[in-house]
Amino acid sequence: MKTAVFVKAGQMAIETIEKPSVIEVDDAIIRVVRACVCGSDLWSYRGDDDKATHSANSGHEIIGIVDEVGSAINTVKKGDFVIAPFTHGCGHCAACRAGFEGGCQGHDRSTNFSSGYQAEYVRYAHADWSLVKIPGQPSDYSEGMIASLLALADVMPTGYHAARVANVQKGDTVAVVGDGAVGLCAVIAAKMRGAKRIIIMSRHKDRQELALEFGATDIVEERGEEGVAKVLELTNGDGVDAALECVGTQLSTETALAIARPGASIGRVGVPHTKDINLSDYFFQNAIIAGGPASVTTYDKSVLLKAVLDGEINPGKVFTQSYSLDDIDQAYKDMQERKTIKSMVVVSK
Amino acid sequence: MKTAVFVKAGQMAIETIEKPSVIEVDDAIIRVVRACVCGSDLWSYRGDDDKATHSANSGHEIIGIVDEVGSAINTVKKGDFVIAPFTHGCGHCAACRAGFEGGCQGHDRSTNFSSGYQAEYVRYAHADWSLVKIPGQPSDYSEGMIASLLALADVMPTGYHAARVANVQKGDTVAVVGDGAVGLCAVIAAKMRGAKRIIIMSRHKDRQELALEFGATDIVEERGEEGVAKVLELTNGDGVDAALECVGTQLSTETALAIARPGASIGRVGVPHTKDINLSDYFFQNAIIAGGPASVTTYDKSVLLKAVLDGEINPGKVFTQSYSLDDIDQAYKDMQERKTIKSMVVVSK
Repeated sequence: MKTAVFVKAGQMAIETIEKPSVIEVDDAIIRVVRACVCGSDLWSYRGDDDKATHSANSGHEIIGIVDEVGSAINTVKKGDFVIAPFTHGCGHCAACRAGFEGGCQGHDRSTNFSSGYQAEYVRYAHADWSLVKIPGQPSDYSEGMIASLLALADVMPTGYHAARVANVQKGDTVAVVGDGAVGLCAVIAAKMRGAKRIIIMSRHKDRQELALEFGATDIVEERGEEGVAKVLELTNGDGVDAALECVGTQLSTETALAIARPGASIGRVGVPHTKDINLSDYFFQNAIIAGGPASVTTYDKSVLLKAVLDGEINPGKVFTQSYSLDDIDQAYKDMQERKTIKSMVVVSK
Repeated sequence: MKTAVFVKAGQMAIETIEKPSVIEVDDAIIRVVRACVCGSDLWSYRGDDDKATHSANSGHEIIGIVDEVGSAINTVKKGDFVIAPFTHGCGHCAACRAGFEGGCQGHDRSTNFSSGYQAEYVRYAHADWSLVKIPGQPSDYSEGMIASLLALADVMPTGYHAARVANVQKGDTVAVVGDGAVGLCAVIAAKMRGAKRIIIMSRHKDRQELALEFGATDIVEERGEEGVAKVLELTNGDGVDAALECVGTQLSTETALAIARPGASIGRVGVPHTKDINLSDYFFQNAIIAGGPASVTTYDKSVLLKAVLDGEINPGKVFTQSYSLDDIDQAYKDMQERKTIKSMVVVSK
């Protein structure tokens, strides 16, 4: 079967490897219908992650059809259409019970995240509780709906995580730092949770337009100190009730902390690529700093899948270009160059 | 009038200075009935704070009688018995409205905290919303009740802050790191909020006994890695739902973070004396790190004063020795040497 591999910075390729098969009793083999490229995949593609090695970091977001299951899998069977969350919670440990399967304690952490999923088939570990069944088959859905279902493997739940851990409440003023697919999904999440005002920090016209469509009320184009000043100006000097950090850089994290009023929450979901942010610096502002890998299964099963199927939210709009698996390098390149907000990869029907 | 002054590490003294008078329209002059020594006062007394200068850091926790008020004060009058919170919120800004007056935005931050309150009289800035009126007069209360009322100026609300920002819920397993007066009050707070299990990390017999009386269910005497291992053992490897950090050192903060299960909250109220705790290190455990100066007025008015007056809680038990103002150096020394959990200073009747 075909799989995408990271060759070196700026170069993805397709290789042919053996189709995966069930190894553990709680594995599921999934035939991939759609995959995509994540902002976190781009860190190594851009050359910003010098630890990245050949074959590292080739995707973790798919929807597909169950092809085979291990003997301990009772929730899905061959032929089922599923969302494959990038987190593989057991559903039973203290972390999973608390709705934080990104830190599942039921198995070794190294097996808790998807990797190498830009491929024709994947082996999905700890599948029993984690996989999310979609009613029907891919052919039952429009392309727009397929895109929104694909968004439920990572970006939409990740945006939702930012809003949940920042405890966004009805009537809140919220700022979203970052206009990538996750930031845009965080706008959707803030609106779902009843935020009255949603400020997005964005410098790109196409993303600003989508943010407004998703529910943003204000756009701040400035960055750094100027951006902070603008957000404070928009909020009469108060700062925001919740800042959703959806990038992970030093600047974006410091910005999120600086625009938060005393006692506000910072929900951070961008994988940190920060040098040093010292906790003690934020004591006197009573900052509530939360976040980490999202609780994909929890959110999909409790609220997000229904919201997508009911047409209440359309996170699939973040996919503005589609590619075949053979064109994986182009999918990365266009996303890196911001020619597309997020690249979808059409693997099978 | 007499006031305590910090002379140098290991030496407090009494000096005679002019009695304060109203300067700003929202000032109140308070005749001090009881003052006390805070764990944070001891940082400089021990010599751990090399920035401390003569007359710095002489107390911030009192109850007393209003002696004079500025023209903008409408909530209290001469003769009223009051708790003087160490935070001076305006009650109207976004931070205060959200219940985080420790970060009040209504005035310059330098005027938001009490200082120099081990004295016969104090000038209390921004008094209108912040002061908390106690029914009746000091003579109406037992010495035990007076002690509990004094605890409402800082330690009890600070312990409560740890539990509130860590979102302690009914049924939670909570660990309290630190067995000083604040840690012991955090035990009270965790119990008030319905925690099922309360583990206190404590090495001192007198404090352990008080912790058990306040509602602790388990004691961990070990520190550092051994202490972390013990808490994990007590929780079947899960870690706790909430860790209340009531010391502020590097070790106590790292301990609190290490015993928290993924997605758990760390409520920190010990003023940080940490070298460097890097935020990005706690992303993958989805740590929720909250805390800062407590919301004293908010908690006293909403829940704590009533709980004390109804005899539901007895935080005054943390005061295990009393001193006259003239004996202020002994009050510091005994507390530093752990001969008393917290030193009360009897200033007037």
